[in-house]
Amino acid sequence: MNKAAIYHRPESEFAYLYAKNLMHVRLQTQKSDVEKVELFYGDPYSWEGLDNPETQYWASQKVEMKKYLSTNISDYFEAEITVATKRVDYLFVITGLDGEKVVYTDQGMFDYDESLVTKKYGAFRLPYFHESDRFKAPEWVKETVWYQIFPERFANGDTSNDPEGTKAWNPQDVPDRQDFYGGDLQGVIDHLEHLTELGVNGIYFTPIFQAFSNHKYDTEDYMEIDKQFGDKELFKTLVKEAHARGIKVMLDAVFNHIGDTSAQWQDVLKNQEKSKFADWFHVNSWPATYTPTDDFENAENATYDTFAFTPHMPKLNTANPEVEAYLLKVADYWISEFDIDAWRLDVADEVDHTFWKKFRTTCDAAKDDFYILGEVWHSAQPWLVGDEFSAVMNYAYTDAIKDGLITKKISLEQMVSNINTQLTLYRKQVNQMMFNVLDSHDTPRILTVAKNNKNLMKLVETFTFMQPGVPCIYYGDEYAVTGGMDPECRKVMPWEEKDQDLEMFDFFKNLIALRKQYQGILSDSEVEWKIVDSENGIVKFERGSLKAIFNIGEKPAYFSADEVVFSNLVDQNNILQYGFVIYK
Amino acid sequence: MNKAAIYHRPESEFAYLYAKNLMHVRLQTQKSDVEKVELFYGDPYSWEGLDNPETQYWASQKVEMKKYLSTNISDYFEAEITVATKRVDYLFVITGLDGEKVVYTDQGMFDYDESLVTKKYGAFRLPYFHESDRFKAPEWVKETVWYQIFPERFANGDTSNDPEGTKAWNPQDVPDRQDFYGGDLQGVIDHLEHLTELGVNGIYFTPIFQAFSNHKYDTEDYMEIDKQFGDKELFKTLVKEAHARGIKVMLDAVFNHIGDTSAQWQDVLKNQEKSKFADWFHVNSWPATYTPTDDFENAENATYDTFAFTPHMPKLNTANPEVEAYLLKVADYWISEFDIDAWRLDVADEVDHTFWKKFRTTCDAAKDDFYILGEVWHSAQPWLVGDEFSAVMNYAYTDAIKDGLITKKISLEQMVSNINTQLTLYRKQVNQMMFNVLDSHDTPRILTVAKNNKNLMKLVETFTFMQPGVPCIYYGDEYAVTGGMDPECRKVMPWEEKDQDLEMFDFFKNLIALRKQYQGILSDSEVEWKIVDSENGIVKFERGSLKAIFNIGEKPAYFSADEVVFSNLVDQNNILQYGFVIYK
Repeated sequence: MNKAAIYHRPESEFAYLYAKNLMHVRLQTQKSDVEKVELFYGDPYSWEGLDNPETQYWASQKVEMKKYLSTNISDYFEAEITVATKRVDYLFVITGLDGEKVVYTDQGMFDYDESLVTKKYGAFRLPYFHESDRFKAPEWVKETVWYQIFPERFANGDTSNDPEGTKAWNPQDVPDRQDFYGGDLQGVIDHLEHLTELGVNGIYFTPIFQAFSNHKYDTEDYMEIDKQFGDKELFKTLVKEAHARGIKVMLDAVFNHIGDTSAQWQDVLKNQEKSKFADWFHVNSWPATYTPTDDFENAENATYDTFAFTPHMPKLNTANPEVEAYLLKVADYWISEFDIDAWRLDVADEVDHTFWKKFRTTCDAAKDDFYILGEVWHSAQPWLVGDEFSAVMNYAYTDAIKDGLITKKISLEQMVSNINTQLTLYRKQVNQMMFNVLDSHDTPRILTVAKNNKNLMKLVETFTFMQPGVPCIYYGDEYAVTGGMDPECRKVMPWEEKDQDLEMFDFFKNLIALRKQYQGILSDSEVEWKIVDSENGIVKFERGSLKAIFNIGEKPAYFSADEVVFSNLVDQNNILQYGFVIYK
Repeated sequence: MNKAAIYHRPESEFAYLYAKNLMHVRLQTQKSDVEKVELFYGDPYSWEGLDNPETQYWASQKVEMKKYLSTNISDYFEAEITVATKRVDYLFVITGLDGEKVVYTDQGMFDYDESLVTKKYGAFRLPYFHESDRFKAPEWVKETVWYQIFPERFANGDTSNDPEGTKAWNPQDVPDRQDFYGGDLQGVIDHLEHLTELGVNGIYFTPIFQAFSNHKYDTEDYMEIDKQFGDKELFKTLVKEAHARGIKVMLDAVFNHIGDTSAQWQDVLKNQEKSKFADWFHVNSWPATYTPTDDFENAENATYDTFAFTPHMPKLNTANPEVEAYLLKVADYWISEFDIDAWRLDVADEVDHTFWKKFRTTCDAAKDDFYILGEVWHSAQPWLVGDEFSAVMNYAYTDAIKDGLITKKISLEQMVSNINTQLTLYRKQVNQMMFNVLDSHDTPRILTVAKNNKNLMKLVETFTFMQPGVPCIYYGDEYAVTGGMDPECRKVMPWEEKDQDLEMFDFFKNLIALRKQYQGILSDSEVEWKIVDSENGIVKFERGSLKAIFNIGEKPAYFSADEVVFSNLVDQNNILQYGFVIYK
């Protein structure tokens, strides 16, 4: 047995409270190396036969752990346990396929000896089942299908607030980086019925606060709605009308950096080290300056820290108590005054944990069941312990889907391995909250990635909707809008029927209905991979009572169903290329 | 190569800021399986050749990682890096002894392909070097040799406060569980010169607040000094006089539970669910009650949560805002009003992290460079991230030393493996802070564990003083006091020369002087194991310029030194059984 490949980590995604007093324990081993994993557990202080120190033994219970996921190199075992006294010691007895048997404890790995268990040699421990430390996330998020709106491009409901030089609303027009089209909040209010008809019940707005650019990620004032979008009254109306339709509202908090046209940064440029905002930023040497290049978003020799290398987004010093107080006031203000339901945090990984912990406390105090979504493109365990974010944008997960099903950069086997790797990184209740985006304002549109193959797009969307986590649709995808990397992915929404793919709209409507109907099992049940066959392009998996087959290969795939729940390109019991079926 | 055994975890002890803008990166592999680990790292946003998407590449640097520790199954590699922009992406290129070469990234493990590096496929990331998130611990702790005082047994300086039934101060007397001997704070003040002569510069006091028992772990009032020990004025004097001698003062905070004779619990017993303190505890069903057993410290069927199974220590509900506010006030009070330097936290692991994070903030606000020491007997990563404790009582480390050198429960090779396992669990700055105790009020005395073999005791003490971390001497060990498990280990201090082992006192005096002279390298340098030979009972290691050999075998061991710094049982260049030498 490969003992060096056995891994466990107390108080992490390997050992955590899933529900009140209910603990999940996981173990990683080499793939196909282990015959059996037994988990011994019990109260740390419970001993039997205390009269005789020689024969006294730990009062433990035993459960055989279940193999629940595999990657291309590792297997993962899991067990769900509880102890009445709300505290637990535990250790693993692992039997290899080669017959080797070891005891794995907090002190290390030992050849099997019964006394290591009965005398409880250096057990792992969850010292107490603290509800206050348990990762908790709002139930409503599981029931949500998100819809991302880039306000400048969704709908122009009020031409009176259009900026100078606003271009005509032409869905065929490929935007340039600095273009304005006049989209605004009134446009969103005007089209709430569209969202209701589609079936989505959460809007994620990219930034709406006062800012210089069309994307508004270069904030000038976090306390004001951008004049091009409307005003506070209008936003309040929007939230109310959305709530009346059962639609949640998530705003984008860009706290890593501020816009260089903000009053704070302008004061720094004017007064330099004497500015009262000098410590609001990370200026490494004075004066705060940079060398421009041909690229507006790329500076050389900046003497201050920025987002990436753009001189127009100076990084905020969130460890400065003044900055902290200001941003926490912002966080509270839009919840308390406008009743928003969630914050999406831009470039969340580059802001300090110390700040986010206070941010979390602020949000929790302002509203029950608040959702906090971090933009983190890489593995995100440190933010998902329970005291910072509720979830992150799950690009790492959806990238595997795109690379496996569309670009075929990786085999289907590797895709499933990558997906499973992601699932092993987080507590189960985190996986249920993850924000699964196939595309966004920061990526090419999914239909463009799929080289305009609408059936492939449908297959990939359905595959994603069938995964743990909550799906998000990027505005316009429901009408089969195309576009490459930004700014191309930010075309205006087609509101005239001649520009709309109504068949795609129907597809999404049905897909969202499917997701809602089966939300319980899609949130809670494990993903059980049944067939993963790159040669024939077939993936088959089950989620509870639902079975799913996807075919990206050239040969039809066969299935036999009692009931077909959802499908595309299915001819009798044959699934054609780029077809799929969800059935029972 | 054993790919399943390769492990890395971003933002953990595997990847952290050691000093300002200075990052340590570690990797775990199977033992003796890997030829070379190369770390590629650079700014996440720095690309060269951006003009051509086909040939553009990530502007990375490369460093070969150094193997710095091994256990019986794993090797650990380490590198120290920095990036001027204070943010870093990194990935590993690992070459096995079998020639296999892989790239290990945040997305998983891949067969080597140069483009995985040049295109930076799914790199690990430390998004920004946040000083606010860095684990920081006070420099003075590294320079401290602690001395643990159990006040009831150290010295009786004021007989007027002796409780009824106080027993005679007889160092030969083996205490019963409920005995009182009259030790108090005046006794400590009277003997500060003893500590100065010995050379220690930190006192860890077990609890001194008002409580029922002799050990005072069953607190009645956290805001009062126990009357048997003195009063607040006297304690203030003690702290001042200690500080005048350069001695730091650490108090014991027992926040997991309270004494059942406290006003709060008495009110619960009287008024049950109507008590205003009903929610201060974890009462699972009313009335709060239990079935006594023959054992005073063991209840059956308690309807409320307790420490272990003792009905006299009801567990506090630290998630209750009232309890939280009260205990945080206590934490602040003894720092702000009495100028203590450190808190030791009793049963720290059973209190919630949410509480300890607030506790840490409270202490940091009250005093710079405050030290927080948690009682955690098992692996303690969750508490040692930087926002809770400074260190834990390092029983897991010293148990390995005792098991290897004294009881021989484990081989010397296993001892070194266990020690190294402990060293890999924490950031380097944590290991420098760890509280290394060979014995305490909770364990048998080290001389008793060593079956009264004073030379073996000296060997083990010296071995421990040579380790990373800060040593602590349990009162009386310097006079070779003996005693088994508590209450036997809590004998009164021998103050008459006839009861004192003056030779042992000199040994400790010299050992402490050695530790102080070489504190810099003993804190900072790696432990380099040179010879670990169970058959002959020899361990040889180096710490910077210092070499150390320990012999627990039956044959003399030979050495050749330029300068002998410290030794015992050395006959010319031969180290006899239970002898050791520190030399250059």
